[in-house]
Amino acid sequence: MKYTIYLAGEIHSDWRQELQEKLQEMKSAEFTFTGPQENHEKSDAIGETVLGTQPNLLYRDIQSSKINNLRTQLFLNKADLVIAYFGEKFKQWNTASDATIAIAKGKPVILIRPEKLHHPLKELAERANVTVGSIDEAVKVMEYLFD
Amino acid sequence: MKYTIYLAGEIHSDWRQELQEKLQEMKSAEFTFTGPQENHEKSDAIGETVLGTQPNLLYRDIQSSKINNLRTQLFLNKADLVIAYFGEKFKQWNTASDATIAIAKGKPVILIRPEKLHHPLKELAERANVTVGSIDEAVKVMEYLFD
Amino acid sequence: MKYTIYLAGEIHSDWRQELQEKLQEMKSAEFTFTGPQENHEKSDAIGETVLGTQPNLLYRDIQSSKINNLRTQLFLNKADLVIAYFGEKFKQWNTASDATIAIAKGKPVILIRPEKLHHPLKELAERANVTVGSIDEAVKVMEYLFD
Amino acid sequence: MKYTIYLAGEIHSDWRQELQEKLQEMKSAEFTFTGPQENHEKSDAIGETVLGTQPNLLYRDIQSSKINNLRTQLFLNKADLVIAYFGEKFKQWNTASDATIAIAKGKPVILIRPEKLHHPLKELAERANVTVGSIDEAVKVMEYLFD
Amino acid sequence: MKYTIYLAGEIHSDWRQELQEKLQEMKSAEFTFTGPQENHEKSDAIGETVLGTQPNLLYRDIQSSKINNLRTQLFLNKADLVIAYFGEKFKQWNTASDATIAIAKGKPVILIRPEKLHHPLKELAERANVTVGSIDEAVKVMEYLFD
Amino acid sequence: MKYTIYLAGEIHSDWRQELQEKLQEMKSAEFTFTGPQENHEKSDAIGETVLGTQPNLLYRDIQSSKINNLRTQLFLNKADLVIAYFGEKFKQWNTASDATIAIAKGKPVILIRPEKLHHPLKELAERANVTVGSIDEAVKVMEYLFD
Amino acid sequence: MKYTIYLAGEIHSDWRQELQEKLQEMKSAEFTFTGPQENHEKSDAIGETVLGTQPNLLYRDIQSSKINNLRTQLFLNKADLVIAYFGEKFKQWNTASDATIAIAKGKPVILIRPEKLHHPLKELAERANVTVGSIDEAVKVMEYLFD
Amino acid sequence: MKYTIYLAGEIHSDWRQELQEKLQEMKSAEFTFTGPQENHEKSDAIGETVLGTQPNLLYRDIQSSKINNLRTQLFLNKADLVIAYFGEKFKQWNTASDATIAIAKGKPVILIRPEKLHHPLKELAERANVTVGSIDEAVKVMEYLFD
Repeated sequence: MKYTIYLAGEIHSDWRQELQEKLQEMKSAEFTFTGPQENHEKSDAIGETVLGTQPNLLYRDIQSSKINNLRTQLFLNKADLVIAYFGEKFKQWNTASDATIAIAKGKPVILIRPEKLHHPLKELAERANVTVGSIDEAVKVMEYLFD
Repeated sequence: MKYTIYLAGEIHSDWRQELQEKLQEMKSAEFTFTGPQENHEKSDAIGETVLGTQPNLLYRDIQSSKINNLRTQLFLNKADLVIAYFGEKFKQWNTASDATIAIAKGKPVILIRPEKLHHPLKELAERANVTVGSIDEAVKVMEYLFD
Repeated sequence: MKYTIYLAGEIHSDWRQELQEKLQEMKSAEFTFTGPQENHEKSDAIGETVLGTQPNLLYRDIQSSKINNLRTQLFLNKADLVIAYFGEKFKQWNTASDATIAIAKGKPVILIRPEKLHHPLKELAERANVTVGSIDEAVKVMEYLFD
Repeated sequence: MKYTIYLAGEIHSDWRQELQEKLQEMKSAEFTFTGPQENHEKSDAIGETVLGTQPNLLYRDIQSSKINNLRTQLFLNKADLVIAYFGEKFKQWNTASDATIAIAKGKPVILIRPEKLHHPLKELAERANVTVGSIDEAVKVMEYLFD
Repeated sequence: MKYTIYLAGEIHSDWRQELQEKLQEMKSAEFTFTGPQENHEKSDAIGETVLGTQPNLLYRDIQSSKINNLRTQLFLNKADLVIAYFGEKFKQWNTASDATIAIAKGKPVILIRPEKLHHPLKELAERANVTVGSIDEAVKVMEYLFD
Repeated sequence: MKYTIYLAGEIHSDWRQELQEKLQEMKSAEFTFTGPQENHEKSDAIGETVLGTQPNLLYRDIQSSKINNLRTQLFLNKADLVIAYFGEKFKQWNTASDATIAIAKGKPVILIRPEKLHHPLKELAERANVTVGSIDEAVKVMEYLFD
Repeated sequence: MKYTIYLAGEIHSDWRQELQEKLQEMKSAEFTFTGPQENHEKSDAIGETVLGTQPNLLYRDIQSSKINNLRTQLFLNKADLVIAYFGEKFKQWNTASDATIAIAKGKPVILIRPEKLHHPLKELAERANVTVGSIDEAVKVMEYLFD
Repeated sequence: MKYTIYLAGEIHSDWRQELQEKLQEMKSAEFTFTGPQENHEKSDAIGETVLGTQPNLLYRDIQSSKINNLRTQLFLNKADLVIAYFGEKFKQWNTASDATIAIAKGKPVILIRPEKLHHPLKELAERANVTVGSIDEAVKVMEYLFD
């Protein structure tokens, strides 16, 4: 069977590449991966790229986030499974919000976070189906599902 | 008419008291306020209060967050309107998740955050109905709705 | 029984007052009426009233419409019935959108429009439950429901 | 991946052709386009085409709009994304209603309108994910999603 | 507690009066009863009562049924329980449709029909929660629920 | 594109064959047709075919209708469009119920009935998207959608 | 505020009385309790009480369970919170099913079970919000919510 | 057409193999089968396989059941039909919960159980579409659907 997996979360490390490589070794299922815009500059600038210079940074953010939300909604709607990754830096409120939308839509969600972030993530962790501490642990969950 | 308002967000300042006092001066509507457990210690300990000492901090968190999520679900289900407050400190991922659940359930949401937090909150801000920078601005929105 | 009725539509005539007076003569049911901000200036300015002067008219509109949408969502969620009124002037796209949201939420909708507007409103008219040509006709529908 | 895009909006210009040509240059995704009946005469006459002459123009409209709504519902249900176009002429209430149904169904929506129409469209614009001022701007949004 | 009960079904006998009298002897719950327009002439004529003479019987029916559907939707939305009664005469397709809408909305449904109608009603009977053969049997079900 | 069409309604004439032949001449879309068990004897007997002889005709009907409802639910869930046909004979309450379930699920519905049945079908006819008087008229609607 | 609490689970001990007494000492909220028929004989016999003697035990069960499911659906729909109790005896599959329906409807659920039943209940326990080992622990959860 | 069938239920006998073999003889439809982890040891251990040794058996169960629930949610979401099998041994509360989730999601459900289990399963049996007593009877239902 074919599955579409949305990879929510930070765009400052190469966790998506690492995860995808490990998953693609599995032969029993075929995965299509989607996710947010991973080019940070492009993501912050997209509102002005489309609509031209905005009056200040606040309005620049408003217009970019509208397009980013469009993107997330389009790809989340088509996802069978969501894997959300929290890194150690940044506020990552969009990751928290994307994972929660997936949960509210009834999509199964795996959350990856360094164990030291457990306390601030504890309520969201219990809303997700499964919370693990590393990409390798997420891969083990995937192997259990698809092998 | 009577309205139930869920006050999501941080429990380290007295923003709820300030907001409630200002709203209760309005005579045109009757409000019931609900929200998370505001006693931080009680909130972190509730899992062990109910189930006894847990084997480690991780499980202490797991058991507490289950009860906190139960509470949020019960009161959010009954809310007509959600006001979510982000302060300057802490990760506040549960606030991001609670606001997002309310949005997904079709509840109208007002988000309060210091303007300096706009960039990391930008996607969630555009998912909410209205984002303002202070309690006084939120009160002005409420006056517009109910006066 | 008590019913909450949302009165969607134009705010440039006193159709709401006329309708409410005629409905309040009915003794068999108790109605609470809600609707959009009827003070046009206040409605257009509310974004700047809350957030201060915006950089241009476009952003003035964006901020006001967010608050107007919050208001509509709050009151539509609580409505048992929606009556939407189209006048002869203006684009009235927000009326079309409000009536459609009500339909999508499964709320019964009565549409009032001058018969001459039938052609451009024809698809929306068939999505609504009932389309009539005047306030008096809408009152007759209400009498049928509640007398 | 394959995506189905519903093109809501006016049928008096060739905006659909222009948009489709520009989108089909993108190689990263495969699009199927659907939309309303673009032949205006056929659209107005379909009720009588099927059921025979109706008693007058009002009833002619009722029967045609039922079939047009059937068409919209069939294709909107299957759409992954909706692009709604407002031109400068006509009431276009069906466009407002179609875009709103898509929003209510959780479909991502891009709204194209000449900037001068911003004020009357402002509430619907904020309900849509993204509002732009031209086809070229909509294409830039699509490139951001699919390139 | 208070319960609202929608009494779907034929309007040619006094089954509603009989049922209501028997239920009102129960002291443990408070019931509000709603239902379709029971005056058959009024029900068939309501379209023309509101909109004036229609060009033919077909349009007379179309306009009346729109208002009857509005009524059903309003009252079914507020119902906690639906009791649908099939008599021995007439097509009663609106009863079948009203009961099915209630089932689709997740409302509990009791179906009353003379046992001889079991065969043509068999699929709908199995979609409803409970099917009985007489008003007295329906009253026994109600006593089981509320005594 | 491919569409799945559920053909609800009577199984005593060959209307499905007639409709399918006429639709298969259309080249612009590919249709898969589903529907109820068309062998009347098999449909009535299926409960006993699976579970053995039942105590009497009533129970025979209960068990068969459970399996028929399973079938309808399976195929309706996968349908893009429903065409429901009422003939002149029989109670056809299952057709009324199947069409209503499709409407409640947001599936577009075309209803075919001899015009003389308009009065008893009038409420259901207005819940469906389109009501026509013959198979040929339904084919014209389909040509409008897919040509 | 007022809350309606459905008490799912076994009817062979007086756990409901014990729980209600302990909860009614809390002054901060007003509770209405509902639940299944607690008279076991009446529950098993209700089908025959209403419809007369059935041909065998299987049909006796079928008819009774239809009425029991009606009852559960009516009261669960109105519940704000569900507390489900598993005892040490019996299969209790209806308790498992009732708790799961509540979860699927988005109702918050507290599960009480002797700790020794954890293993067979482990998947359902993780679907519920909170799982505790005794009535006293459930009361502590309630105190946390309402004090 | 292609159908995905989720096989819920016990993992201690080879009922899935038996059912699949019998179904695969049918040529008229193409089935993909999914289900829970059938290796009992792997199922109980998966939490520790992913996250390492847990403090005791209770926590071992918590972590395994989260991953098992993720699996069920993923595959149930994609299923067109669910067949749930109850054997004579074990509590099988997860089977009862899985079948109920499928029912709540609007998926058609066939329940297989030895007839002697009818009494404790009676309420769930009436929530499912069809209840049969053996694999062969389930196969007959499938033949009725797809032949």
